[in-house]
Amino acid sequence: MVKVNDNYLKLQGSYLFSNIAKKVNGYVEAHPEAKIVRLGIGDVTQPIAPEIINTLHEAVDEMGNADTFKGYAPDLGYEFLRNAISDYDYKKRGCSIDPDEIFVSDGAKCDCGNIQEIFSVENRIAVCDPVYPVYVDSNVMAGRAGDYDKSTEKYSSVIYMPCKEENGFMPEFPTEVPDLIYLCFPNNPTGAVMTKDKLQEWVDYANKNGSIILYDSAYEAFISEDNVPHSIFECEGARTCAIEFRSFSKTAGFTGLRLGYTVIPKDLVVDGVKLWDLWARRHGTKYNGAPYIIQKAGATIYTPEGRKQIEQQIAYYMENAKYIYNGLKEAGYSVSGGVNAPYIWLKTPDNMTSWEFFDYLLEKANVVGTPGSGFGPSGEHFFRLTAFGSRENTIEAVDRIKNL
Amino acid sequence: MVKVNDNYLKLQGSYLFSNIAKKVNGYVEAHPEAKIVRLGIGDVTQPIAPEIINTLHEAVDEMGNADTFKGYAPDLGYEFLRNAISDYDYKKRGCSIDPDEIFVSDGAKCDCGNIQEIFSVENRIAVCDPVYPVYVDSNVMAGRAGDYDKSTEKYSSVIYMPCKEENGFMPEFPTEVPDLIYLCFPNNPTGAVMTKDKLQEWVDYANKNGSIILYDSAYEAFISEDNVPHSIFECEGARTCAIEFRSFSKTAGFTGLRLGYTVIPKDLVVDGVKLWDLWARRHGTKYNGAPYIIQKAGATIYTPEGRKQIEQQIAYYMENAKYIYNGLKEAGYSVSGGVNAPYIWLKTPDNMTSWEFFDYLLEKANVVGTPGSGFGPSGEHFFRLTAFGSRENTIEAVDRIKNL
Repeated sequence: MVKVNDNYLKLQGSYLFSNIAKKVNGYVEAHPEAKIVRLGIGDVTQPIAPEIINTLHEAVDEMGNADTFKGYAPDLGYEFLRNAISDYDYKKRGCSIDPDEIFVSDGAKCDCGNIQEIFSVENRIAVCDPVYPVYVDSNVMAGRAGDYDKSTEKYSSVIYMPCKEENGFMPEFPTEVPDLIYLCFPNNPTGAVMTKDKLQEWVDYANKNGSIILYDSAYEAFISEDNVPHSIFECEGARTCAIEFRSFSKTAGFTGLRLGYTVIPKDLVVDGVKLWDLWARRHGTKYNGAPYIIQKAGATIYTPEGRKQIEQQIAYYMENAKYIYNGLKEAGYSVSGGVNAPYIWLKTPDNMTSWEFFDYLLEKANVVGTPGSGFGPSGEHFFRLTAFGSRENTIEAVDRIKNL
Repeated sequence: MVKVNDNYLKLQGSYLFSNIAKKVNGYVEAHPEAKIVRLGIGDVTQPIAPEIINTLHEAVDEMGNADTFKGYAPDLGYEFLRNAISDYDYKKRGCSIDPDEIFVSDGAKCDCGNIQEIFSVENRIAVCDPVYPVYVDSNVMAGRAGDYDKSTEKYSSVIYMPCKEENGFMPEFPTEVPDLIYLCFPNNPTGAVMTKDKLQEWVDYANKNGSIILYDSAYEAFISEDNVPHSIFECEGARTCAIEFRSFSKTAGFTGLRLGYTVIPKDLVVDGVKLWDLWARRHGTKYNGAPYIIQKAGATIYTPEGRKQIEQQIAYYMENAKYIYNGLKEAGYSVSGGVNAPYIWLKTPDNMTSWEFFDYLLEKANVVGTPGSGFGPSGEHFFRLTAFGSRENTIEAVDRIKNL
């Protein structure tokens, strides 16, 4: 008699962003006249840059011609893309990451969700609180999280590292030593960043304790300050304790094209087993590569013209971030993030819960944001806005919030 | 102290096709002058059909325009594609499968590999032997397969259903009742097919025993005979016991574009839990949709012109299949498959092992095929050739084999 994976039944509610979508759709159905501005899910709005569009057209033509047609992609991804990543994202920053240590995929979300598979279910994970839900939920599904306690809103086996106003939204070393430590900087949802010195302390901590850091740097392209590392591999010793995830989604507007990559150094060895080998095996068995045309598109961001265009796009979004940050500050909100990250993290007014503020903004201003509590209990009384709207919508949203 | 997932260490060798690639690359390096013909991995060679190329260009232009740009895809896939699938692949064949029961993905390999996650690790799986390695390996990784026994070449907890010459390469009901039954028809690697009556017996068996059939119909487009079902949902009662996987890879040459889908009927309930809900949750948490442009490309195969063009492509490959089948028969080989499937399954001559025959063909004829034993112990002394080469290469390969 077949049985389901009971761990799935321990998951709370549905995936945060599916939930928000349902709420918004419900509101829109009841108020078809409402002009909703969405600064919630963190999806981009600017079209794909012209240089990338050109590449896509060229690659499509290659697929239509017998002489240049491409079938299954190489297991790790095309060399032209891995070479460009290795050179531009790593070697240029002084990090020695070889093309062979880069696994191209259809996005950082998938990789962040799947990476836990190569580790023992007995491993303890630590996450920032608030946190991107995928890290926790994928571990719940695997049976690594324990049981959910409704009163604390926490899973019994997960080590939560509260990131609150009091500690500048920075995780502190937990009292119990975790086996796997999820870190995401620039942070989603708080927009906080770690300096290189601070991140070095985490690398040292992991090496000392035999822990692995799962480092999500999906937002590194938004870093504007010099002392903020773009990669964990800028820290000494990271090659023996860290895996890094990167995404083209926010860097180049690829949320609808799907491309990302994971870096696993070949020095990363646990009990004599190279994690690279395990991930390569997973990749080969359960995955079949990102489309050739998308990999070509991705490589275009490493050309001079492609780079110029995506930098303009990032600057555009960061102007939005500044506008939101300053506007909310003027309106009396307590705000952080938005300087090295496309996320603005604000404290809800009048001690409203995050979901109360969500409903309030949706109903009174027709603005959609993301409730901080959806990212974990320490996110309660906070709220995330993203800089990924159009300028017009961003200004409109901020003005509406100011006028509440 | 972090630990790895020990189950990964129980995997045997590397993924079959990665192994073959390494062997062939080694040979090519040593013999750069050799003109290798690859009828091994089952990758297609015909370019993407012109009508699909047109759609791709249009969709690329949409992505470059702010008004038509698409970000994250809907969780289950775009409606235009799910509607087309529901109508054409199901309703037209008398199967009531709603668009909401279709989950669009980046390929059947990923879905076949990931589906086991929603089931208990205590469930027993049954597989045909020989079998597509992904079904077994993904269960080994999850800890559902038990230990590998080198003498039998089997995992202790997997129920193997031998498909041999004696039984027409058809699985028989196992003595122990499995919880999850993987079936793939038209079969990879044997090219065998199940009649509708026979498949109905399996559906009845599953419903009677509380088992779930995981039905891989990636090759349904190659069916030429009337009594062979294209979908398990053509059988009565399948909605309460079956999940079906489909792929655009072989149907429309999408191995390098990546598109597939999984059908989970909403009536499929285990212990009061809808499997649809679990898969939706997995999809929402660990996956982020197939690219819009690829989904548009996929929908094109349901237009009259798109359909005509991919049918021509399939006819082309099936001509190859016929050529291989007849050629090998003339050369005295014992051959099956190739009538409703793009795979030809041949018995190795002179009692050679599958890998001996692989080396023999590679060295003496510079032809690459797939060793039957790579698909399971009952595949020993068999060998798979695919019809996916160009006509020229296919003829060349058959002629070379004939002349050995």
